[in-house]
This record gives sequence, structure tokens and C-alpha cells, in this order.
Amino acid sequence: MIRRALLSEALGTLILFATVIGSGIMAERLAGGNVAVALLGNTLATGAILFVLVSMLGPVSGAHLNPAVTLVMRLRGHVSTRVAISYVLAQLIGGIFGVWLAHLMFDVPVLQLSHKIRTGPGQWSGEAVATFGLIVTILGTARMRPESIPTSVALYITAAYWFTSSTSFANPAITIARSLSDSFAGIAPGCVPGFIAAQIVGALAGHFAADLLFTENLKATT
Amino acid sequence: MIRRALLSEALGTLILFATVIGSGIMAERLAGGNVAVALLGNTLATGAILFVLVSMLGPVSGAHLNPAVTLVMRLRGHVSTRVAISYVLAQLIGGIFGVWLAHLMFDVPVLQLSHKIRTGPGQWSGEAVATFGLIVTILGTARMRPESIPTSVALYITAAYWFTSSTSFANPAITIARSLSDSFAGIAPGCVPGFIAAQIVGALAGHFAADLLFTENLKATT
Amino acid sequence: MIRRALLSEALGTLILFATVIGSGIMAERLAGGNVAVALLGNTLATGAILFVLVSMLGPVSGAHLNPAVTLVMRLRGHVSTRVAISYVLAQLIGGIFGVWLAHLMFDVPVLQLSHKIRTGPGQWSGEAVATFGLIVTILGTARMRPESIPTSVALYITAAYWFTSSTSFANPAITIARSLSDSFAGIAPGCVPGFIAAQIVGALAGHFAADLLFTENLKATT
Amino acid sequence: MIRRALLSEALGTLILFATVIGSGIMAERLAGGNVAVALLGNTLATGAILFVLVSMLGPVSGAHLNPAVTLVMRLRGHVSTRVAISYVLAQLIGGIFGVWLAHLMFDVPVLQLSHKIRTGPGQWSGEAVATFGLIVTILGTARMRPESIPTSVALYITAAYWFTSSTSFANPAITIARSLSDSFAGIAPGCVPGFIAAQIVGALAGHFAADLLFTENLKATT
Repeated sequence: MIRRALLSEALGTLILFATVIGSGIMAERLAGGNVAVALLGNTLATGAILFVLVSMLGPVSGAHLNPAVTLVMRLRGHVSTRVAISYVLAQLIGGIFGVWLAHLMFDVPVLQLSHKIRTGPGQWSGEAVATFGLIVTILGTARMRPESIPTSVALYITAAYWFTSSTSFANPAITIARSLSDSFAGIAPGCVPGFIAAQIVGALAGHFAADLLFTENLKATT
Repeated sequence: MIRRALLSEALGTLILFATVIGSGIMAERLAGGNVAVALLGNTLATGAILFVLVSMLGPVSGAHLNPAVTLVMRLRGHVSTRVAISYVLAQLIGGIFGVWLAHLMFDVPVLQLSHKIRTGPGQWSGEAVATFGLIVTILGTARMRPESIPTSVALYITAAYWFTSSTSFANPAITIARSLSDSFAGIAPGCVPGFIAAQIVGALAGHFAADLLFTENLKATT
Repeated sequence: MIRRALLSEALGTLILFATVIGSGIMAERLAGGNVAVALLGNTLATGAILFVLVSMLGPVSGAHLNPAVTLVMRLRGHVSTRVAISYVLAQLIGGIFGVWLAHLMFDVPVLQLSHKIRTGPGQWSGEAVATFGLIVTILGTARMRPESIPTSVALYITAAYWFTSSTSFANPAITIARSLSDSFAGIAPGCVPGFIAAQIVGALAGHFAADLLFTENLKATT
Repeated sequence: MIRRALLSEALGTLILFATVIGSGIMAERLAGGNVAVALLGNTLATGAILFVLVSMLGPVSGAHLNPAVTLVMRLRGHVSTRVAISYVLAQLIGGIFGVWLAHLMFDVPVLQLSHKIRTGPGQWSGEAVATFGLIVTILGTARMRPESIPTSVALYITAAYWFTSSTSFANPAITIARSLSDSFAGIAPGCVPGFIAAQIVGALAGHFAADLLFTENLKATT
């Protein structure tokens, strides 16, 4: 059972991260300098694959695909510490292979390091807000309208790619994985710790805010 | 109960307005002068976040997120005058903080006033039509196909961003909040009263039109 | 009952046609000559509003919003000749007012005639195919997965705007109404009869094809 | 019964392939060299029509519309060898007529051969990954959330158009059919065998991976 769940997290992040990086490379190549059009393609692909993955992997492993989500699920007692650590490792390993797979498909060197600087209070507040919103969306939708989780997660990220200054990484595993790609979606390795710290702050804030907004009582009466 | 509902309205408008303003800034920055591409990004983000917010906040507070909607719900007796006034205040406060949050994330001065002139009979009729359509959509969908409310609200606004000359504010709170942002989605403070008046006219017309179109009888037979 | 249905058809075509024309004007103004971007905006708005209208007006009047659909429903015995004629009149009147409303909102002369030539075997076969596909979609989805009708109609037209050379009018009422707008979505009055003839041929072909593909027996076993 | 299923496969591929080719021609004509915008239009149309076709033809023939899918369904014992062969022939014949119909609608010569070279390990790995993902999506969604199959197939292809270097043909029939169109979506005939071989490898890998991820037991407990 746990083996299948870990496979689900690893394959899910592999496909998700290959989509984020691959569609970023495709969009950048085709857009001829029009970055807004490139971001439209990148957004469309990411939102679409999230619906697919969360729909089919949700019943297998919960489809966390994100250490920030696994952290919150650990804090809420939905998974044990042992399972949480295995999930995060599976997400990281799957995700890094996803980045390398995208590089392979697009005929670029497999091993790269990003040089894209993403830093400063604007971007960090963007990451905190993005992760806060993602956690509130997951917890709130799970309580109020659980059948919409795949749609809501996909559409939340679709919006967040545009409304945050950092284009919403909102995921420590993808932040690390993206540092291994010198492309549209990359982030320089030195900028990774700032992003991950902001994501954890946002995730914890979302964890507490969800308890204020969505109570068990309400769930019972809905 | 009411405290949770007010938190829901405030947080909902905060996220919604941060999305409208933030995606507007992002789109304008990236689009390099191609305003149609900028509006595509702005539309995609706004429609997407509306589905997310209405899905999860609908069961908490009704997810009005809009004083024009609260006004109609008051007229139909769904909320008391006291609750209606608290809702509108929560929407305004949350919404203004949402605009400021967007400014913070995008490293622009937090306190701004828009200089974008939006006025004249074309724009006013656009706002009246946009708000009329929004109210008919909410009331009609609630009666005929309630499970589709989040989708229909999101898609109505998606369409209305494009089919009205004013790009459909359709919301007095967002009109006030947008006057505090000198960006793509802004409106000069002097133009606010005309927009709000048109929105109230449209909302009242929608309130009456819905009674002509959608009766309780029909609901019973569906 | 019939009065409410006629109001539904008239208001539905008014909003639909105002969306088609209004989003066409908006898209053309903003796109700065990039017609593909303009068509993206026009498509997004039209598909979105179709979901909204078919969802809420379907239970009231069937949400035909299209004389070709009403013709097929008459042939299949779902409406009487008298009702069918009233529907078509309501669609035409509502639709023409929708075009004029779009002109009013965008500050252009209300009364116009299009000068856009749309003619020839390529465009006519496009219209026949587009209407054939629309009728098969409506009849097939109604039989196989009725809860998806609003989504399928919206997405069919979304696709058809792009895969037919004529950008899929697929509707005699909108063909007439578009001849009254000298904008992106217009059609010169002299080209209207060719389009309508092709649409009727396509609708009749779809009516027969649906009987070959989707039987009552199948419906029973699904 | 089988006759209706074959008609469903033939008509489905006809409409699907006419959409892929037609929207490709439309997008290329309008985009004025901005290939990313062209791919957005092509993606939107393809994803939209896939939802429509899989929704209504799924209950008739399974809506394979793809010899790689039929191969996997044969391996899993869902169809007999005789039915599988008839399906593939129906898909090929319908699909080729779909390409010719697109040419007819867009006033280009009906009989063409593509000159677009698509070859090399990057593209082949892209096709293998694309088909692998498609098969996992179909089998996984069928087991975990069957009502989402039309949405998941449509959104998977939407994402895959962007995240694979080959823009995801993922279908041997469409690969052959596209070789008959010298347009945006074409592929030179000499490149067809490499693509089909990669697709079969990907399909077989997906067939086995799905058994590792999605068990009957899980299905029972969901």
C-alpha cells in the first residue's frame, strides 16, 4: 500500500515537473520574446495536468506532489512522520527525474543549473501568499466540496501563476527541481532557500486560517 | 457563525481583488504592449480564482464578494439589513487589503490612486449590462442548476471581461478598490460614482428579470 | 409557460449575440492586428457564455438559441410548429437587439451593415460541417450524457471557431444578426443566404446521423 | 452493435482529425508567424473537441479514436482481435477523410504530402512519453474516477501539446493522417515509422505502469 502511494507521488511529480519545465521550454521557444504568451502556454499546460494527476492519483496517495502539502497533512495527523518523510523523498526524486526527462525530450543538456535570479521581499511575499492560498484551497475544498478538489487545485494554480510576482512555485520540491533547469521556469540555486522559507511560512498560515474558516460543524450541515 | 461568514467575505475579496490587480500588473508587464494578450491573462486568472472561491466559500458565507450581490440578497430577504451592512464592510476592507497585497508582491508603492479615465454612456451601459447579467446568472443558476454556480459565475465573468466595453467591474467594492491602483485594472476615483450607479441599476434590473424568467413552479418541475 | 420560454429564447440570444459581437469588437480593438489573439478572446467569451446560458435556460426553454436547433427539434417532434415559429421569431428579435446593445456599449453607431465578404465552397462546407457537428453534439450528448450538455455545447463551439474556415456561425439567427454589424464578427448581407442554406443542409444531415449513431436501446443500457 | 461502434470510431476520428488539421491551418494563417499563439489555438480546439467526442461516443464504442488505445484494450481483453482490427481500420479511414475535409473547408488542395521533418531521439522520447501518459491517464481515470474520463483525456492532451517536444501526436492513426497534410500539424511520411514505433513503446509501458499504480483492490475501496 505505502509502496504504491510512493510510486504515485514519484510518478505524479515526475509528470508534473516535466510538464512545468517542458511547457516552459516549448513556450519560450515558440513565443519569440512575447513572455505573456509564453506564460499563457505554461499556465494552460500546468493547470491541465494538475486536474489529470489529482483526479487519478488522489485516491492512491492523496496526490500531495508537494512537500508543503505533506507537511500540513502531517501537522493535521493525516499521515505519520515516517510516511511524510518517504513522501517528500519520493516527490524530490520523481521531480528531479521529471526535469531531466523534459531536458531529454527537448534535446538540451540533461544536467543544468539555473541562472535566473528570483529574490527580494516582493517575490518572497508572493511565494508565501501563493502557498497560503494553495493550502486554504486544498483544506477548504476538501471540507466544503470534495468532488471539486482536482478542479480547484488546477484552477488555483492557474490563477496564482498570474497574480503572484513569483509565478507561484508554491512547492519546495519544484523549487529545488527547477534550480536544475536553466530555462524559462528555472530559479538560481542560491535563491532556493528564500523561496522554501517563504513557502513554509505560507503553508503554516494556511493551515491555521483553514481552521478559522472551515469548521467540522459546517461540514456536517452542508 | 456571522463572524466566520464575515471572515469568509473579507478573505474572499482579499484573494479575488489581489488576483484581479496582481494578474493585471503581471499581464501588463509581460505583454509588451499587446493589450489583448494582457486581457487574456487577466481573464484566465480572474475566472479561475472565482471558481475556487465560490466553491469553498459559498457554503460559509454565500460567497457574495460583491455589494451588488449582497444588495440583491437583502432585497430577496436572504440576509438581514444588519448582516448585509457587515458583509459590505467586510468586502470593502478585505478588497482594499487585497489591492495593497498585490502592490506589495509586485514591488510597487502600496498606496496609489488610479489615473485611468473610464467614463461615458458606453462604459456605463457596459457596467449596467455586466451587473444585470451577473445577477441573472447567480439567481437563475441557483434555481435551475445550483451545483453549477461556481462554474457559471466564473465563466460569466470570463465572458463579460470581453463583451462589455468596461471589461466588467460589475462590483461596487472592486470599483472602489481598483481606484487605489494606478495599473492595468485601475479606475480614476472621479469615475467611481458613475460606475457604481450603473452597477446598482443593472443589479436591480437583474433582480426583477430573474423573477420573470425563473419561477418557483419551474424549479419544482425540474 | 410558453411566454416564459419565449422570454428565455429572446434574452438568451440577446446575451449570446451581444457577447459574440462585443467580444469581437473588444478583441479587434486590443489585438493590434494579431487576428489569432483576437480569435482567442472571441472564442473564450463565446464558449464561456454558452455554458452559462445553456445551464440556466435549458430547463426553461431548452435553450435552443438557434433556428437550426429549433428546426431539428420540430422534425423530431419535441416542439409544435406554432412553438417553433415563435421560438425563431424570439431568437431573431432578441439576437438583433443583442447586436445593437453591443454597438451601444462600444460607442459605435447602432445601425450598421457588414461589408465582410464570406462566401465560396470552402466557407459553405465549413458552415455545413459546423452545423452538422453542433446538431450531432446536442442530440448525442442529450442521449448519452445529458448532464454534460452545457459543457459539450460550449466546447463544441470553442473548437468549431477554429476548425472551420468560416469560424462557425452554425446558426441562421446569428448569421442575420451579424450582417448588422460592420465589425470583426460581421458578414455582408449578400453572403447570408449561402450561409443559411449550408447551415440547414448540415442540420438535416446531423439529424439523420444522430439516429444512426445513438439509439434508444443504447440509451436504455447506459 | 459492432456496426454502430465502427461508425462511432470513424466519425469520431473524422471530426477529431479535421479539428487538429483545420485548427492548425486556421491558427497558422491568423497568427502571422507567432507560433506560440498558433499552438494556443490548436490546443484549445483539440482539447475542447476531445471532451465532446469522448463524452458522447464513449458509451457507443469506448471512443478509442486511437490505434494505440485499441491495442492496449486488446491486450487487457476488453475487445477481441477481430474488433480491434476493425476499429483500427475505421479510425484510419475516418481520420484520413477528416484531414481531407479540413483541406476542403480551407480551400487548399485535398491531396497533399507533408514536408515537415519530425525526427530524432528528442522527438521520439517525446512521443513515447506522450503515449505513456495518455494510456496511464485513460486506465487510471477509468479505475479511480470514471466520470472524469472525458475531462481528463481532453486536459491530458492539452498539457501534452505543450510539454513534449513533438507536440504529442500520441496516436498512430493521426500520425499517418497528418502525413497527408502539408500544414502546421503535418509530418513528413518518412518520419511516420519512427513516431509510431515510439508510440507503441509508450503505450506498452503505460499498460504495465497502470497495473502497478491502480489495483482492483483500490478500486473496490474507493
